Amino acid sequence: MSHRVADALGYKDMDNISAASSRHNSENLPYVHKVGVPPKQNLLKEIAGTLKETFFADDPLRQFKDQPRSRKLVLVFQALFPIFEWGRNYSLSKFKGDLIAGLTIASLCIPQDIGYAKLANLDPQYGLYSSFVPPLIYAFMGSSRDIAIGPVAVVSLLLGTLLQNEIDPSENPVDYLRLAFTATFFAGITQFTLGFFRLGFLIDFLSHAAIVGFMAGAAITIALQQLKGLLGIKKFTKKTDIVSVMRSVWSAAHHGWNWETILIGMSFLAFLLVAKYIGKKKKKLFWVPAIAPLISVVLSTFFVYITRADKHGVQIVKHIRRGINPSSLNEIFFSGEYLAKGFRIGVLAGMIALTEAVAIGRTFASMKDYQLDGNKEMVALGTMNVVGSMTSCYVATGSFSRSAVNYMAGCNTAVSNIVMSSVVLLTLELITPLFKYTPNAILASIIISAVISLVDIEAMTLIWKVDKFDFVACMGAFFGVVFSSVEIGLLIAVSISFAKILLQVTRPRTAVLGKIPRTTVYRNILQYPAATKVPGILIVRVDSAIYFSNSNYVKERILRWLADEEEQLKESSRPGVQYLIVEMSPVTDIDTSGIHAMEELFRSLEKRDVKLVLANPGPAVVDKLHASKFHEMIGEDRIFLTVEDAIVTCAPKMDLEP
Amino acid sequence: MSHRVADALGYKDMDNISAASSRHNSENLPYVHKVGVPPKQNLLKEIAGTLKETFFADDPLRQFKDQPRSRKLVLVFQALFPIFEWGRNYSLSKFKGDLIAGLTIASLCIPQDIGYAKLANLDPQYGLYSSFVPPLIYAFMGSSRDIAIGPVAVVSLLLGTLLQNEIDPSENPVDYLRLAFTATFFAGITQFTLGFFRLGFLIDFLSHAAIVGFMAGAAITIALQQLKGLLGIKKFTKKTDIVSVMRSVWSAAHHGWNWETILIGMSFLAFLLVAKYIGKKKKKLFWVPAIAPLISVVLSTFFVYITRADKHGVQIVKHIRRGINPSSLNEIFFSGEYLAKGFRIGVLAGMIALTEAVAIGRTFASMKDYQLDGNKEMVALGTMNVVGSMTSCYVATGSFSRSAVNYMAGCNTAVSNIVMSSVVLLTLELITPLFKYTPNAILASIIISAVISLVDIEAMTLIWKVDKFDFVACMGAFFGVVFSSVEIGLLIAVSISFAKILLQVTRPRTAVLGKIPRTTVYRNILQYPAATKVPGILIVRVDSAIYFSNSNYVKERILRWLADEEEQLKESSRPGVQYLIVEMSPVTDIDTSGIHAMEELFRSLEKRDVKLVLANPGPAVVDKLHASKFHEMIGEDRIFLTVEDAIVTCAPKMDLEP
Repeated sequence: MSHRVADALGYKDMDNISAASSRHNSENLPYVHKVGVPPKQNLLKEIAGTLKETFFADDPLRQFKDQPRSRKLVLVFQALFPIFEWGRNYSLSKFKGDLIAGLTIASLCIPQDIGYAKLANLDPQYGLYSSFVPPLIYAFMGSSRDIAIGPVAVVSLLLGTLLQNEIDPSENPVDYLRLAFTATFFAGITQFTLGFFRLGFLIDFLSHAAIVGFMAGAAITIALQQLKGLLGIKKFTKKTDIVSVMRSVWSAAHHGWNWETILIGMSFLAFLLVAKYIGKKKKKLFWVPAIAPLISVVLSTFFVYITRADKHGVQIVKHIRRGINPSSLNEIFFSGEYLAKGFRIGVLAGMIALTEAVAIGRTFASMKDYQLDGNKEMVALGTMNVVGSMTSCYVATGSFSRSAVNYMAGCNTAVSNIVMSSVVLLTLELITPLFKYTPNAILASIIISAVISLVDIEAMTLIWKVDKFDFVACMGAFFGVVFSSVEIGLLIAVSISFAKILLQVTRPRTAVLGKIPRTTVYRNILQYPAATKVPGILIVRVDSAIYFSNSNYVKERILRWLADEEEQLKESSRPGVQYLIVEMSPVTDIDTSGIHAMEELFRSLEKRDVKLVLANPGPAVVDKLHASKFHEMIGEDRIFLTVEDAIVTCAPKMDLEP
Repeated sequence: MSHRVADALGYKDMDNISAASSRHNSENLPYVHKVGVPPKQNLLKEIAGTLKETFFADDPLRQFKDQPRSRKLVLVFQALFPIFEWGRNYSLSKFKGDLIAGLTIASLCIPQDIGYAKLANLDPQYGLYSSFVPPLIYAFMGSSRDIAIGPVAVVSLLLGTLLQNEIDPSENPVDYLRLAFTATFFAGITQFTLGFFRLGFLIDFLSHAAIVGFMAGAAITIALQQLKGLLGIKKFTKKTDIVSVMRSVWSAAHHGWNWETILIGMSFLAFLLVAKYIGKKKKKLFWVPAIAPLISVVLSTFFVYITRADKHGVQIVKHIRRGINPSSLNEIFFSGEYLAKGFRIGVLAGMIALTEAVAIGRTFASMKDYQLDGNKEMVALGTMNVVGSMTSCYVATGSFSRSAVNYMAGCNTAVSNIVMSSVVLLTLELITPLFKYTPNAILASIIISAVISLVDIEAMTLIWKVDKFDFVACMGAFFGVVFSSVEIGLLIAVSISFAKILLQVTRPRTAVLGKIPRTTVYRNILQYPAATKVPGILIVRVDSAIYFSNSNYVKERILRWLADEEEQLKESSRPGVQYLIVEMSPVTDIDTSGIHAMEELFRSLEKRDVKLVLANPGPAVVDKLHASKFHEMIGEDRIFLTVEDAIVTCAPKMDLEP
């Protein structure tokens, strides 16, 4: 067995290798490999390759290859509506899991929806509407099996804040509602467009760290907003920053707090948190926190109804419109000044909603190990929100907490969303009037207990440990949201993320290499203190493609390494550097600016009597070195396959007398 | 000698190496090197290191190290005013070169200045003013020895276009002039600020290719604008795009062209172009094109004066104000609506001026091999423009054509700028009235012959050969300027440059590696067709730091390589992949998103019974793998120094029966 492997590895040639390498020593006739020049590519092919790698990196058309036309049509249809693919293998046993999961998330989403609608300054029924139509559409078009669709806290808050900046919901509720639908429409269009044009990778520009910070900040902000309902305060600030909110809370302390409200709110909050704790400790009891909100609502509503606590200042929901979603197609602003505003708000809310949904989809897909086409997901989410905007829904997306419950309750397919949607339908048709006496304080407690898990201390600790720069982004987004506003937090998050990218491309790392004793391997001497420098030769590795954004830096950094080295050598009066080997393995590409920088480096070195040598340039680089005739400038014999080859060739030519 | 080298290289241990490697074969006890874990760095030190590399990459404070305080003060002063450093070694022989160079560029700049001022819709004397004060300031503060300071064509055009969009210069010349000074002031402030805060690297974001295209487009646009003067057209469009200009030219053909003007203009244009050609063919005759413009001006002015051609419709300069720069401090808008506009225009013009000056400075510094601190240059240029804005100058910067003449005429230091400045002073004081009869057509020919060399066909060809994407950027900028406007061209150039950066960070290259026969080296199988894959093992190299912007892509790309490989193996019914080695040499850094992606990759592979192995992670990566405990997840024994080590360890454990 081991013999077979050795054979396959080519170890039979082992003796030849030793022979070849020992020849270096004895006869000074090194055996040097040629650097491969890749076959010249057709220009169109090259461009097509780049485009494919950029927009179709996941090769979504793979299954369409070599299929007859009729089959292709079926595949396209199935790609658009995955339900017709997995639906064919759907079975009763799968439905059992989906039914239980669907009922569980329905019990969780109904009270949450009512509360989230308030966050967006909308009447409670709009929350329920958004848990009816969008999940249905998603079930037909989406490919995630575990995501639970509906309104979510962060998007509701973002939408509420942005809409409120344009129209005061208490002064002009009709236009406010219309603007909300307009924003939802454009959120859907944005999501659809990004997916359709396969630009989904754009959401990757919001870094994980920034999202963690943003979510935590939004959670704190949302929780603070709930103090209004929880303490029964009537006059409350419209700002969301912590300073304004706390000032509002304290100034209401003397006359505005309502002890009955506080009593109800606090006791049920405690109940919810205990239920959450139980669910966290015993994974089997995940249903305890899942149904706790509904129990709280039922109990507290009953309690208020019996004691008529609403006469004592306990604020209640009062009215929820009965019946299913009315059409809202005519309410969307397709012209006028609000069109542009709705568009702007929609794009922002759509992107954030997308980020959340895609993150959830990916998480669960990787847990159950199935593939998820991010761009197809976006098309599904976009369609769902466009249809939603025409049926009185506001922006819906995947909810983290409900998706987790869905997963744990054993959902198998998107049918659990259909089940949930049906329960919401029944609720809308039959029992909305019963919510009349539900105290607002309960909704506040439910929201607080829901968002509290968005503050992911564990993730923050890990970020701190792993990458300090990421932590800055995380905290920047967090404090931006908490102390200023959601938009500012988001702006900070995006800016820091971009700054990191720019830093990466302008200041790539470089390293001086040394030989690891008893090998032919050259490594960063800072990482491997045992690695030794080769006298008279400086080996520098450049750790990035050399592009216009960094070409000048790379050139100057290499010259600085050389200057440092020369200084050290001078101090110990050893002979100077005669060869500068640039290890180019990590240099995947070079552009015209990069070539210019290399030429300048070459000239600068020539003036100092140092010879430039390149080791292991990659295919794209070799190609461009040839195109620009740089290989003729430095000499073809100065380009080697490995650093070792370069050293073996250069070392004997050196004059090491000081 | 060769023995000494071999000794130094550690080749004495050669036998040991062969022994160690043959052991792999015979005894299955491979000698594997440990991956180095860099010493844990202090947090503050780490941050300081990053900041230093970002903002002080060129180590500008090196000379301040270990110096007494008084010496430091002197050094700071010398750093601010390099003239006091090089001035101490200044000699008569150096002055000779500077004098000749200064006189040559003065003769070139005077006619150009008058023409360029017209491009910016300013009276001719403002061009001369801008060649008097700024070069003086620069001579004291700048560190380039070859740059020639003054107004330049592209910036004049840009400024003229942008200012004209705000104020009509023929209707409201006073406010127009004031806005020009305001823009100049803020251009200087922008340049100073960028330099002072060491943000100079920001201008590197405009790629070389984009600049080539932009400059060529601007040159064409400027040349087209000169048709007005050259053909003696009175009614001319204010737009700069080629379509509007040509329509304007044709519609004037019947009545607006003036044959005397055309005769003068064309014959002198021919003279200038011949002179230019001579200068290009024989480097020694560089002074021919340098003094040709002044000769043309003198000859044509004399000719017009004699023949009174101005009575026959030949347009002349008419009036240039005599005397040196008046103060313009009170003319700058420090408040009001024009403040913001001036600021915006100034930032744009300042950045473009900076790009040109820094490019020139770097080119000549690398030709004469001296160091240039880009950020210090920016401070000098900024100060010069701020002072300029207070002394009736508009934005000045380094001129490519005049700097080249300066260099070829043998300038040694910035004293040539002082000489030029003095000549301009004399001109202003004494001979401006003589320019009265200079025909505008001559200025047009001078400008055309000056800007024509900005169309760098050679550079464009090279860009086409080296990098197709760069060529798109180049052409985008070119056509943007020619067919639309300078701003649009600039916008296109910047957008394409950024798109390239984003592409680079979201879609890094990956490659499947194979073993190059008779070595222990593993290389891209596409580049080295001779490289062979190792059965049961897939080796993938990731060619970039793994950050949030690409982590998901990298993960999915690796899985796709695996899927492709498995498919191929299945077709030929060979055993599947059991080990996936990720060669991480080029992965210089990883962030939390990257770690997550690696964890997901690990889990996906586990489900497929493929073992994940890492080869040669760099210091930053090793650090973060440890911080996130990822090394415990995959097992410390799955991280190797080289791919060869990994294979030698994994191969014997494999079960290769299908």
